Amino acid sequence: MPRPKAQLKLGAFFNPTGHHVASWRHPQSQADANVNFQHYIELAQTAERGKFDMVFLADNLAMREASMEALSRSAQYISNLEPMTLIAALAAVTSRIGLVCTATTSYYEPYHVARKFATMDHISGGRVGWNLVTSGTFAEAYNFNRDAHFGHAERYDRAREFAEVVVGLWDSWDDDAFVRDKEQGLYFDPAKLHTLNHKGKYFSVKGPLNTPRPPQGHPVIVQAGTSEDGMDISARFAEVIFSAHWSIEACKKYSKEVKSRAAEKFGRDPDHLKVMPGLSCFVAESESEANEKYEFMQSLIHPIVAREILSTILGGADLSKYPFDGPVPDLPMTGGSQSTMQSAIDMARKENLSIRQLAMRMAGARGKSVIKGTPKQIVDHMEQWFVEEAADGFNVMPPYLPGALDDFVNLVIPELQRRGLFRTEYAGRTLREHLGLPRPRSRYEARADHAAE
Amino acid sequence: MPRPKAQLKLGAFFNPTGHHVASWRHPQSQADANVNFQHYIELAQTAERGKFDMVFLADNLAMREASMEALSRSAQYISNLEPMTLIAALAAVTSRIGLVCTATTSYYEPYHVARKFATMDHISGGRVGWNLVTSGTFAEAYNFNRDAHFGHAERYDRAREFAEVVVGLWDSWDDDAFVRDKEQGLYFDPAKLHTLNHKGKYFSVKGPLNTPRPPQGHPVIVQAGTSEDGMDISARFAEVIFSAHWSIEACKKYSKEVKSRAAEKFGRDPDHLKVMPGLSCFVAESESEANEKYEFMQSLIHPIVAREILSTILGGADLSKYPFDGPVPDLPMTGGSQSTMQSAIDMARKENLSIRQLAMRMAGARGKSVIKGTPKQIVDHMEQWFVEEAADGFNVMPPYLPGALDDFVNLVIPELQRRGLFRTEYAGRTLREHLGLPRPRSRYEARADHAAE
Repeated sequence: MPRPKAQLKLGAFFNPTGHHVASWRHPQSQADANVNFQHYIELAQTAERGKFDMVFLADNLAMREASMEALSRSAQYISNLEPMTLIAALAAVTSRIGLVCTATTSYYEPYHVARKFATMDHISGGRVGWNLVTSGTFAEAYNFNRDAHFGHAERYDRAREFAEVVVGLWDSWDDDAFVRDKEQGLYFDPAKLHTLNHKGKYFSVKGPLNTPRPPQGHPVIVQAGTSEDGMDISARFAEVIFSAHWSIEACKKYSKEVKSRAAEKFGRDPDHLKVMPGLSCFVAESESEANEKYEFMQSLIHPIVAREILSTILGGADLSKYPFDGPVPDLPMTGGSQSTMQSAIDMARKENLSIRQLAMRMAGARGKSVIKGTPKQIVDHMEQWFVEEAADGFNVMPPYLPGALDDFVNLVIPELQRRGLFRTEYAGRTLREHLGLPRPRSRYEARADHAAE
Repeated sequence: MPRPKAQLKLGAFFNPTGHHVASWRHPQSQADANVNFQHYIELAQTAERGKFDMVFLADNLAMREASMEALSRSAQYISNLEPMTLIAALAAVTSRIGLVCTATTSYYEPYHVARKFATMDHISGGRVGWNLVTSGTFAEAYNFNRDAHFGHAERYDRAREFAEVVVGLWDSWDDDAFVRDKEQGLYFDPAKLHTLNHKGKYFSVKGPLNTPRPPQGHPVIVQAGTSEDGMDISARFAEVIFSAHWSIEACKKYSKEVKSRAAEKFGRDPDHLKVMPGLSCFVAESESEANEKYEFMQSLIHPIVAREILSTILGGADLSKYPFDGPVPDLPMTGGSQSTMQSAIDMARKENLSIRQLAMRMAGARGKSVIKGTPKQIVDHMEQWFVEEAADGFNVMPPYLPGALDDFVNLVIPELQRRGLFRTEYAGRTLREHLGLPRPRSRYEARADHAAE
């Protein structure tokens, strides 16, 4: 069913030097991105010039686990600026673009997450989103007083309760609780203050939150999980889903399923859930030039790094014990992102790839889809996914930064705008307004209405 | 022993609407400070115009505990913007002033604190400080899965280990660990990466920190504890001490003691520990005008609020059971800040004050010292404390904001500068440079030198 009048949504994903595993070696990437705040200011302002809905920053609470030989040749998930801090600082130097970052439910406390995102929402004038994740690596567990990470089911169970607490805390104060009547000496109206009193399986949080209700009511909740448990959390809480599907069919199926689950199981409007697959593209005026850009980028990948990335994608399997030019072995489907793992295995089987070939293919975009071509070809791809309702938009992952973001904004955005698929100016002020999401009413306001009926 | 050539240090303490308990009611205060980022930008820029060493933001992880009648008439420690987020955002809109905020060792994890302050230090170009505190209220415990707060000794024991871990994590990467050799494909030198492997009584943190070493080496560590346990932590870790002494004699004694303890017990240079008592002042061109300002501010205090603040200062004692106009009863010296409690009791005994009188006196500045007068009188006071080595500087707590900060910058700073007691321009770039503190070497660098001897 085509939807010609709607416009798609765009996130700008900033992996510090770029999404491609060898990005830091590219002449048009900022190799010192891990200490360079000015780099992020320029990226955010470029994305804002391109009218992106939002910036998106991922995170890890540990250096990646791998051999030192592979690690020392990589810039990704090694040592970077902390994204929540970055987002707060970027709020001060941007005015319209949304700002989304990751905070894990495994090693934060809900009170901190609720308070920091509420504060960022105030500082930015309602432009913030929380990417809710769980952490499944040993390296992270070891930094937070644990000998092992939480198991898959427990991680998601904990995440669900964590999200409930955070959302509950955001409603601690009604929007108009602070009367600030200097004359009468009344600062707030006690009837508009609510104590959460949460006592659950993992968390005991009394509240109230000591930060006023965010301008957006609740900052936008973003989720990336596509496992069965992840999908359930997404259906319940997520307003944006950052997915990793490569085929339009798989993404269409996923999108339909998560939206109907949101509607049927949780009574939500399926339009209030935006599926945005990752998209990494090499764009140039001509097809051959785009191919050259891609091949050049690929040529910078070190094979050791490629094998390590593939190992991570395949749930941490030790690939060094198999011949590098031999076939991809059968591996247990445990740990890591199950959707990405399955996509990789399917590709290897279908195209009969060796470990080296799959590694080089996968390593570049770290398991996410990559396309290359002219602006017209890129936009054809995006339009098809959008019109056929596989995607509500895309999380654009420029292979190297800032160079490939400039290319996207200068070449792809104008073509999207020419076709009416993307805004030419921001219409709203908040991230919710950009995304077409309603502002949530406080649970207490909703209850009061219900009681008055 | 006078020290005529040195210059004193100044912090600008921003309690959102001001330090005075009734500040939010003052016509020259910003009553919506708890949601207004622009207010903080203006404050920070005013302080920077005044060449302050640093901005200082306190924090609590819960709404204050008191009767709703008192709470609803107060703006302090009710519901505010989260300071770590604010500091990050202020880093983007200031260029020279230091930025210090609180993070409690009771309800954070050392990995988060190390990473966030390291990131803020990168973003600000080396202008950040961490105010290390412990949390001793039930309200905070209830927000973090606990039925009670940690006891006094355990809090400080935990704080000590927390600080050790944070400082250790900051040294994870040598200053020159990131070689970023695009040609050779070497991003970092593995020999310059260090894993902490901390396993202690309260924390188990493997490391390394996944953020590069901060520009200052370690962000400046600030501490406010003046209890016996607090003093031990200060002597070991603190580079700035925010104290709450009212008399020059008490502050002189404290300063001498903490500095000699730093030298004798921990082998530190006592000059690398700056004692900065809180100073709240009402300044005007004439003495009578300054008095009027003070009396007007005091007239805005509600007695219920005053009694509640006094109760908090006196360790949570229930004062409602004593006659409000009767004498201050004998109370056990437990909980709260013991130095402030003792100062209050001493004052009541010496001047024979009723509960009401002590409450109104104490409530205004929430237990910190207040002075009033002309710029000359204020600076005479500051100069005496400085020259007699009771203080290395002051944490200026303007009674209402922005009004009283403007007064301080316009009236007091020029008089300090005229006497050569304060800088007329920033000489350094980092907070350490402003404060005259050395940049700490990495523990690993120091060890390597030692091994090579």
